[in-house]
Amino acid sequence: MSLDNSWFTEPVEQTGTAFSLKLGERVHAEQTPYQKIEIFKTETFGYLMTIDGCTMVSTRDNFLYHEMMSHPALNSHPAPHDVVVVGGGDCGTLREVLKHPEVKRAVQVEIDERVTRLAEQYFPELCVANGDPRATLFFGDGIAWMKQAPAESLDLIIIDSTDPVGPAEGLFGRKFYLDCIKALRPGGLLVQQSESPLLHLSLIAEMHRFMREAGFAQTRLLHFPQPIYPSGWWSASVAQKTAGELAQRLDEAALAALGTKFYNAETHRAAFATPNFVKQALAG
Amino acid sequence: MSLDNSWFTEPVEQTGTAFSLKLGERVHAEQTPYQKIEIFKTETFGYLMTIDGCTMVSTRDNFLYHEMMSHPALNSHPAPHDVVVVGGGDCGTLREVLKHPEVKRAVQVEIDERVTRLAEQYFPELCVANGDPRATLFFGDGIAWMKQAPAESLDLIIIDSTDPVGPAEGLFGRKFYLDCIKALRPGGLLVQQSESPLLHLSLIAEMHRFMREAGFAQTRLLHFPQPIYPSGWWSASVAQKTAGELAQRLDEAALAALGTKFYNAETHRAAFATPNFVKQALAG
Repeated sequence: MSLDNSWFTEPVEQTGTAFSLKLGERVHAEQTPYQKIEIFKTETFGYLMTIDGCTMVSTRDNFLYHEMMSHPALNSHPAPHDVVVVGGGDCGTLREVLKHPEVKRAVQVEIDERVTRLAEQYFPELCVANGDPRATLFFGDGIAWMKQAPAESLDLIIIDSTDPVGPAEGLFGRKFYLDCIKALRPGGLLVQQSESPLLHLSLIAEMHRFMREAGFAQTRLLHFPQPIYPSGWWSASVAQKTAGELAQRLDEAALAALGTKFYNAETHRAAFATPNFVKQALAG
Repeated sequence: MSLDNSWFTEPVEQTGTAFSLKLGERVHAEQTPYQKIEIFKTETFGYLMTIDGCTMVSTRDNFLYHEMMSHPALNSHPAPHDVVVVGGGDCGTLREVLKHPEVKRAVQVEIDERVTRLAEQYFPELCVANGDPRATLFFGDGIAWMKQAPAESLDLIIIDSTDPVGPAEGLFGRKFYLDCIKALRPGGLLVQQSESPLLHLSLIAEMHRFMREAGFAQTRLLHFPQPIYPSGWWSASVAQKTAGELAQRLDEAALAALGTKFYNAETHRAAFATPNFVKQALAG
């Protein structure tokens, strides 16, 4: 059967898949200098923000993505004082980062201020930490920001971007990774959204190769459910400036204090569990 | 945008979500006494079987479901000699079960023989173990079969059914669970597909309550990615006849011998990792 316009649909021709949400109505649409942003009210997922027709964030399931883009990496660093979020304009990742009292400074570098302004309006719960004195909202190009970042000034870089086509493409390249390595302190970590383990495995393998070629000592994959993204299964890639086992800084009390819906000690370990077919692809 | 008939679409009005696969063509359609079965050739997921408009199995991603419906439970039982698969007409779960040399007898109880005959034709790779001398393909009603099963004759019951509406509804009820408990030996396990942790959490909580009310000593949830099912995130529920920690019978060599694409020691543990919001719902 076919779907009419009472559904929002994101068809991905390249992967031959589509995901749809039943709509109430479209409540906002605008073309910014960077992209087309739309906000829909859905029947069962709350609000949905799309960029250039791709699902970005929904009220109902964003906790999965935001928690898993932040806490596993933050927990894996022994002292994450200085954190930057590249992209992440909806502020959901920033909110999770600021739940860690060890974080002294968190900068969100989003190219399109309109993403943040619309998040403040339609996803206010994601923006509750924007006024935190440790937080800076900077609107500008993440690639340029990283090039100018002082050497060894960061503990954790979180790249919470759109897909590696269009504006975000440069965030998946060797040159950018070189700047990230320079900006990281010894022991520093980079974590980057890296698409679907089922649908984009060769992209993930290429990313890890680029990361290692740029000089990262070690790379790992973590994965988690994310229903509104293609295949419903999503990943992030962790690159370590210094080789070695990852820390597990947080004890049970610190984990409980995060107030997370998905993330805990068990799901932390689970996210790093590598399926056989992924192991095989990443060994190449 | 809307999707035309060059896509197969399963819209789920209740959850307000839809998943679609880009089609080549529909290669088969028939109405059996039980349901409407269709087979599509898709552009990127191989063949797709649907029943009454719901995705059942695709060539590309069925390994996730079949491996996770079988191996975690088989690994958790110290001596799984006698196994029954209720439903599972595509034979993919049966194939995984028969990879375990400890299994002496495996019966597949599928109500609709046409599901199996079409699987033999379009998913022959799932049917390679059908001729195993330990296997019996029985076509009939799973509820009636279980009622007549001799007491304490089974070690593991796998319920690989369609959704809990229509023909499969009885497989999610207290009466059926009572018959299962009777048929299981002490230490026996039941594992049943239990829908999406995000979309069907109250159903899962109810299932676990029914299982315990019927007399199962303990229930657990395991979860895994399954892109063609609603939300791309699926679960199975494990009920134990006898309380206690689950075994982990298989060593590294035995796990490697399974030749699995997703399942291994890490993803076994990961599947049992319970997100906070699920813990909360199941504690009620």
